[in-house]
Amino acid sequence: MHAITIPEPGGPEALVWAEVPDPVPGEGEVLLDVVATAVNRADLMQRQGFYPPPPGAPAYPGLECAGRIAALGPGVSGHTVGEEVCALLAGGGYAEKVAVPVGQLLPVPKGLELRQAAALPEVTCTVWSNVFMVAHLRPGETLLVHGGSSGIGTMAIQLAKAVGARVAVTAGTKEKLDFCADLGADVLINYREQDFVEEVRAATGGAGADVILDNMGAKYLGRNVDALAVNGRLAIIGMQGGTKGELNIGTLLGKRAAVSATSLRARPLDEKAAIVAAVREHVWPLLADGHVRPVVDRELPMPEAAEGHRVLEESGHIGKVLLVAPHPAP
Amino acid sequence: MHAITIPEPGGPEALVWAEVPDPVPGEGEVLLDVVATAVNRADLMQRQGFYPPPPGAPAYPGLECAGRIAALGPGVSGHTVGEEVCALLAGGGYAEKVAVPVGQLLPVPKGLELRQAAALPEVTCTVWSNVFMVAHLRPGETLLVHGGSSGIGTMAIQLAKAVGARVAVTAGTKEKLDFCADLGADVLINYREQDFVEEVRAATGGAGADVILDNMGAKYLGRNVDALAVNGRLAIIGMQGGTKGELNIGTLLGKRAAVSATSLRARPLDEKAAIVAAVREHVWPLLADGHVRPVVDRELPMPEAAEGHRVLEESGHIGKVLLVAPHPAP
Repeated sequence: MHAITIPEPGGPEALVWAEVPDPVPGEGEVLLDVVATAVNRADLMQRQGFYPPPPGAPAYPGLECAGRIAALGPGVSGHTVGEEVCALLAGGGYAEKVAVPVGQLLPVPKGLELRQAAALPEVTCTVWSNVFMVAHLRPGETLLVHGGSSGIGTMAIQLAKAVGARVAVTAGTKEKLDFCADLGADVLINYREQDFVEEVRAATGGAGADVILDNMGAKYLGRNVDALAVNGRLAIIGMQGGTKGELNIGTLLGKRAAVSATSLRARPLDEKAAIVAAVREHVWPLLADGHVRPVVDRELPMPEAAEGHRVLEESGHIGKVLLVAPHPAP
Repeated sequence: MHAITIPEPGGPEALVWAEVPDPVPGEGEVLLDVVATAVNRADLMQRQGFYPPPPGAPAYPGLECAGRIAALGPGVSGHTVGEEVCALLAGGGYAEKVAVPVGQLLPVPKGLELRQAAALPEVTCTVWSNVFMVAHLRPGETLLVHGGSSGIGTMAIQLAKAVGARVAVTAGTKEKLDFCADLGADVLINYREQDFVEEVRAATGGAGADVILDNMGAKYLGRNVDALAVNGRLAIIGMQGGTKGELNIGTLLGKRAAVSATSLRARPLDEKAAIVAAVREHVWPLLADGHVRPVVDRELPMPEAAEGHRVLEESGHIGKVLLVAPHPAP
């Protein structure tokens, strides 16, 4: 098969479409013919050499995909060759084939094209596990989403609205904020022109956000804690603004608040399977009935993955960037 | 009645036993004849002027007490005058009488003297709400307790052992560590001579602590995060080592860990009542059957509260320091 390889870490040009050995599905895994994958920020870090695949994971980037089951590994039942699925991956989505544990498979929601389903696993699992399983966002509470127009952001807005929460978002342009409003965001904050702490307080009668979903890390740590409400929960899923920040424990204690930080990729199989099962139970019905939809910025041919990385680095996109395999199996 | 007043913030001598107006029980409150109260670190901060009572709370220090119900406020049923109880207070325990919402009352556990029960409300509610309700310590997990010989520490050791967890403690003397061992602590760390991060790792096969109960705040923040296991939870309940510390979000994210900080005193009545109810359900049976006991360092006459504060400031004590009212009602 072909896959996007990274012979040497570097810029987008470091991504090379090359012939590589086919993966072989192990115990409890299926082999997928990949139809599409999607670009995540973690892929950019992997390309630069900062985020090596965990032990046992495929060497190629790609944390999610959609495709068809091509073969069943030993001990797999309940699935059939030819079945259309999408999957959460520990890597290897930028390839024509990938092996994946069955606990990380999800069906293609009704009404969606198969390749669109490649936009779903990472964002639904990340948002559900952080905002709902860790931070326990409840109906009537306020969620602040940084980067509201990102893949994660567009899914977080929709899921929070679907459960009856109020949503504030930050983004850097009016176009992006308008898009967030169309998805249901209630409070729109242009981080280039406004202070999100002041805006969130103003929008909540001074109370602050009950849950914050953050991709900035250190750069926003102090202001995120300032923007939290009493009993607030800050869920950090990215460190685009650095890794070490000052935590004001006095402020945190005064609010009886909590800070968590997670990633999906390195979790053991049983934890991933539990998250995927929860997503299937709680999110998939919302996709099937049209309450929630994947937001796709554009589709590019998989061999042009470098262009997808440039799009994310320039941050002009809204939603997910898909990479479509050149010769998908029929 | 008489109470310990603080005419001017300052050292222990700032505490003055003086005649003050009797409290009047409001809607949903009872009036207690106080038999004993206990000294908490928060009282020392209040004495110094750093921790003013929350709005509506009594002006005098004292976050817990034991005593007898002297009168029922409007709307109170299910309690009787003369009933022996202990209570979680927002303040006012250093007094001959105190008014308290009925949701903060607890019965006196079988087999305990009434005045011993004054050692229970703050430590049981603090440990249960943080270690179990927030950090969800589970059987088989490892809890690290800083200040294992403190009132909080001695209760945390006993409760964690009672639910089947493993307990590591830090303390500053061999005598204190021996006492912790007698209470069931498995791993004893002298923080003056040993590095707790290394010791916790060594005792857990490199894994680290699943839950840490911390009273030091900023001074220990970095090392506490280092000592956490994957999926670990750091629960901060004090800031004896300062309020602002550097948080390594990269380390936290790599471990999928969380940091929470809480206090009891400022919580709204419904949250306090929920914690008290949980403590009554889960902790009181362990007290009744002797699995868990209050640890009392000494009893002092309430007018000598200053001496009690000196004892805590010198940190030579093990467990709680009680202040017994001079003329308890019969």
